[in-house]
Amino acid sequence: MPNPTAAILIIGDEILTGRTREGNAHFLAGELARAGIDLRQIRVIGDDHATITAAVRELAGGHDQLFTSGGIGPTHDDITADAVAAAFGRAIDVREDARAILAAHYAARGVEFTPARMRMARIPEGAALIDNPVSGAPGFSVENCHVMAGVPNIFQAMVAGLLPRLTGGAPLESRTWQLMVAEAAIADQLGALASAHPEVSMGSYPFVTEGQYGTNLVARATDPAALNAAFAALQAAFPEGK
Amino acid sequence: MPNPTAAILIIGDEILTGRTREGNAHFLAGELARAGIDLRQIRVIGDDHATITAAVRELAGGHDQLFTSGGIGPTHDDITADAVAAAFGRAIDVREDARAILAAHYAARGVEFTPARMRMARIPEGAALIDNPVSGAPGFSVENCHVMAGVPNIFQAMVAGLLPRLTGGAPLESRTWQLMVAEAAIADQLGALASAHPEVSMGSYPFVTEGQYGTNLVARATDPAALNAAFAALQAAFPEGK
Repeated sequence: MPNPTAAILIIGDEILTGRTREGNAHFLAGELARAGIDLRQIRVIGDDHATITAAVRELAGGHDQLFTSGGIGPTHDDITADAVAAAFGRAIDVREDARAILAAHYAARGVEFTPARMRMARIPEGAALIDNPVSGAPGFSVENCHVMAGVPNIFQAMVAGLLPRLTGGAPLESRTWQLMVAEAAIADQLGALASAHPEVSMGSYPFVTEGQYGTNLVARATDPAALNAAFAALQAAFPEGK
Repeated sequence: MPNPTAAILIIGDEILTGRTREGNAHFLAGELARAGIDLRQIRVIGDDHATITAAVRELAGGHDQLFTSGGIGPTHDDITADAVAAAFGRAIDVREDARAILAAHYAARGVEFTPARMRMARIPEGAALIDNPVSGAPGFSVENCHVMAGVPNIFQAMVAGLLPRLTGGAPLESRTWQLMVAEAAIADQLGALASAHPEVSMGSYPFVTEGQYGTNLVARATDPAALNAAFAALQAAFPEGK
């Protein structure tokens, strides 16, 4: 059976304007590879209701899982929850279970539970909550769409709670063979090896270090035996590597 | 006149598998904001011909400019040039001007001009070349689609050559006001300010430093007078900020 597929949707004007360098997609990409979930697309869009709704419909419809990051805080620009509810045709309102979690979180810290904070208890009808051990306010899953915070340590904590609940596949394993030659010098041989091992994805990534050209050859596969065979062939073809 | 719009398409399996943390989109996002080009979407996809072709058609059709990064090197997994040619229905082959650039680059360095390197002279019919002062192999523009390398220093050099040729708009300016309070504490006041200044985008970005909650309030606009008025209102509403 092929591995399940996924997309990541990052929501936030601050990324599109160059203010913030996004890191949640990179973090989750690594986690998904280890979980055997095949990430097909990452998309970054702004804080716009219609844009979010359209992207959620398209990406949730085209993949087994969709993960979103950003826009679920207490301020006026946090519109992800409402847009996701609209995408799935669900009602959204303050929900008692989420309200209780927030109330307990703030009570334990002596923090006032204001109307702005109550906004974070707005959860689409029928959604399952995603635990937020950092700051209380939960994420949620509607069907195959998992809505999480943009703040990196909260996002990572939510992913840690969510991923074990999802059905994964065979982890994507990768091995790297580094050569101190320009990639053009090995392109033909590498292309032949890639053709001979169609079940293994072979990538070639050039770099320059101290004025020297180098190339990292990366073999990736979900089948460890196929990966090992292809990697042995790589090593034999380019014995000068390491 | 509204600013022109843009999308960025990043091409490479190494990003979707979590091997590489992408940085070209963040770099270009900042450059586009300064050039007055309104970045609407960043998309990351894998090295797959049909996926690239479909994404190029959709994003070039939906935006004034499309910038791509990755997949134009000499190896078998470098398929961007062919996919972009297909997206625009153009023929692609080794082109004499690109071949001459590469021949001169390698001759000056005493490097052999191999068939693999010749692959980098494959340019879609009618495309304009984008200069690569780092490693010779040019990028190219087909209609509104600008195809550049994935290696960061080459990508940045290509952007530096390309951007002055494009029609920009009013630069997006931004000002930040930092408060050492949780964002929920100022959400209502901020929402009212955002409503009162509809021509200015106001974002709220929480952080934690040394156990203290803080919030960066960011006002963005292309009209400096509107930005200054909104920022003065922010400062007056939250005099404890800096």
